[in-house]
Amino acid sequence: MKRKPQILSTREISKTRLFSIEEMELKFSNGNQVCYERIKGSARGGGVLVVPILDSGEIILVREYCVGVENYELMFPKGRVEDGEPIEEAANRELQEEIGYAAKDIRLLKSMSLAPGYINHMTHIVIAKNLYPSSLPGDEPEPLEAERWPIEDIEELVLRPDVSEGRTIAAAYLVRSLWQSGEL
Amino acid sequence: MKRKPQILSTREISKTRLFSIEEMELKFSNGNQVCYERIKGSARGGGVLVVPILDSGEIILVREYCVGVENYELMFPKGRVEDGEPIEEAANRELQEEIGYAAKDIRLLKSMSLAPGYINHMTHIVIAKNLYPSSLPGDEPEPLEAERWPIEDIEELVLRPDVSEGRTIAAAYLVRSLWQSGEL
Repeated sequence: MKRKPQILSTREISKTRLFSIEEMELKFSNGNQVCYERIKGSARGGGVLVVPILDSGEIILVREYCVGVENYELMFPKGRVEDGEPIEEAANRELQEEIGYAAKDIRLLKSMSLAPGYINHMTHIVIAKNLYPSSLPGDEPEPLEAERWPIEDIEELVLRPDVSEGRTIAAAYLVRSLWQSGEL
Repeated sequence: MKRKPQILSTREISKTRLFSIEEMELKFSNGNQVCYERIKGSARGGGVLVVPILDSGEIILVREYCVGVENYELMFPKGRVEDGEPIEEAANRELQEEIGYAAKDIRLLKSMSLAPGYINHMTHIVIAKNLYPSSLPGDEPEPLEAERWPIEDIEELVLRPDVSEGRTIAAAYLVRSLWQSGEL
């Protein structure tokens, strides 16, 4: 494994309510020096994305307006992990806020980066089983619509134009693999 | 399908060499008004991520240092699509720069968003077949290491800690599905 580049300097060059942009000077092991920019989100604990699955083998997604792509998207429930909050707790909170379920069984499957080259952010992908009805008030500007989908049929799901999020597609496949191998 | 919120205003509140941050005021169909921030990348044509596959069924990934997560990551070759550039051309350029191959056969599989709620960016996922040796000089600060992996064994690949990128994991599964169904 190559030696990591040395970080010579890190400087915040922009800060808004949600984001901060850093300029970093790096020196690679071959002597090359490069100046990069990267984005930091405000959630230091990262994010959590929850794949809720019913005993029937149906997963639950939510339809929500996404201003980044100016479209209604079908995605798994997700949100930020507050500072010091356990991932399982954040996941259970988001579930109750977004789909009106809580889970007795939450398991971390994988931590994913968004764009590792220029975004300092990780999303923890969890699966939520043994669901039971339980709601918490959310802060969404309009009620979210939940939609069920058989985990076996995700090939059709992931090709839908309103299912564009890489993390949602990756998470759906990870869970289907577990389902198919009987590990769920 | 719900009516999309009305975009009342868009204002650039920060701009660096690579990124721009916009503040947007939205009015939802229920009357609620919300102020959002979103990130725009400098690549207006978006990005392209290429899954190169050999006749043997091996895919090719590259190991590259990623300052966003401060780690060496194993990912598919990718890069920006220049303004007006066809996606296939951008894909073939990145292949030659990053792994020393060109492809006779490039096909768009899916366009993915990064974080549709707050990033205005799409990555076009393509598969590249019928590869032949051909190189172009890249702008990487150190040579990239290419690594081959059997497309059948991606369950082990996607769980590696240095394979964290959601898009890479989603793309690997998409291509394996095509491979398994004989559509490649």
